[in-house]
Amino acid sequence: MTKALFFDVFGTLVDWRNSIAREAKAMLEPLGHSLDWLAFADAWRGEYQPSMEAVRAGKIPFSKLDVLHRMNLERILPRFSVSGLGEDVLARLNLAWHRLDAWPDVAPGLNRLRRKFLLAPVSNGNIALMVDLARRNALPWDAILGAEVAGDYKPKPRVYLASAEAFNLEPEECMMVAAHSGDLAAAAQSGLKTAHLARPNEYGPGRGEKAPKVPVDFAATSLEDLAEKLGV
Amino acid sequence: MTKALFFDVFGTLVDWRNSIAREAKAMLEPLGHSLDWLAFADAWRGEYQPSMEAVRAGKIPFSKLDVLHRMNLERILPRFSVSGLGEDVLARLNLAWHRLDAWPDVAPGLNRLRRKFLLAPVSNGNIALMVDLARRNALPWDAILGAEVAGDYKPKPRVYLASAEAFNLEPEECMMVAAHSGDLAAAAQSGLKTAHLARPNEYGPGRGEKAPKVPVDFAATSLEDLAEKLGV
Repeated sequence: MTKALFFDVFGTLVDWRNSIAREAKAMLEPLGHSLDWLAFADAWRGEYQPSMEAVRAGKIPFSKLDVLHRMNLERILPRFSVSGLGEDVLARLNLAWHRLDAWPDVAPGLNRLRRKFLLAPVSNGNIALMVDLARRNALPWDAILGAEVAGDYKPKPRVYLASAEAFNLEPEECMMVAAHSGDLAAAAQSGLKTAHLARPNEYGPGRGEKAPKVPVDFAATSLEDLAEKLGV
Repeated sequence: MTKALFFDVFGTLVDWRNSIAREAKAMLEPLGHSLDWLAFADAWRGEYQPSMEAVRAGKIPFSKLDVLHRMNLERILPRFSVSGLGEDVLARLNLAWHRLDAWPDVAPGLNRLRRKFLLAPVSNGNIALMVDLARRNALPWDAILGAEVAGDYKPKPRVYLASAEAFNLEPEECMMVAAHSGDLAAAAQSGLKTAHLARPNEYGPGRGEKAPKVPVDFAATSLEDLAEKLGV
């Protein structure tokens, strides 16, 4: 029986693309920079997976995502011909990832799912980042789990298994909810149940997973739809 | 400036003594056992500090508190002439620590403090235990921090420092709130601010800390009183 739901966050619960574009524009436009803000968001996100690889491969010790985001930011700024930003601007711009907006179904959906399940983010985002997103979007988490607690990055099995252990549960008592088939395939490999959440516009209109590309236990179009399917 | 409040839990926020006595009685009396339930609670709690010493001293790897509680339970049962309990009874009895009641000022106090500060338990209790106490008593945590996230037990400095790091804060931006002077002395040693909370009846009527025995930044008689003193 499923007792806990684990959530991917970037893309699954929050619209990182439009939020990062908005935050970058709000900070950099007044400084005289004019660029394609959505392309900037895509470029920053594009460095996300490669930057975690060194940790996953055991080449460098675990570094929290805020640190990786900062490295990635400095890597992409020259591509957009942005230079000379002060440390305070860079630090605040890096925290744009703490100011992402949830998709509209998320807060009501989580509050409904909470009646029957323990809820936790199992994201590659670090604890402080998850806490800021929870406060901003009123996400009713029971605990913040994920990469920082596990000391490694998804899709490494350790992240899913450490999250189940934190709740004193067996993997099969936990369900991973994500808009990304790769995340779900890895969770299933570790013995978790899986639910796919369609986010067809994650990377822009029509550019997101409309349906799972792997076998899943449930496929939903919103968290409210998932609640319905889980009998909450 | 203080940005986060960290809370000790056993004794400071929850009345472990009367709760454990009640839970033990509810389970063991129907099985024909009659004992001094408060003495039983005291004996179980009495094994708490010694059991963590092997972890603190680095003699054994970190084990979560649920595991230590179980070892301690099996150690004290013979002293009360209780034997022959089945595995299911032992397992459920051990979870009595997940069913503790908060002191009456806790939920309203935390909800008030939450307006101004990030809030987390920094307890030696494990994540699953903290989550169950939070659900039972409606404790509005931003994250569950403490021993299991740090991989060591208070009063080791690592536990306080790891908790500040999890929130991306400096130690001096965090305040430890506890009813135990030893906890506060260790937190202060690691650079945290401190607030003492009087729980004069923790170990029975008149047997608890009425006032701090070490220098602290604040001394309060309830969480509502602390909120007042912190200007919330």
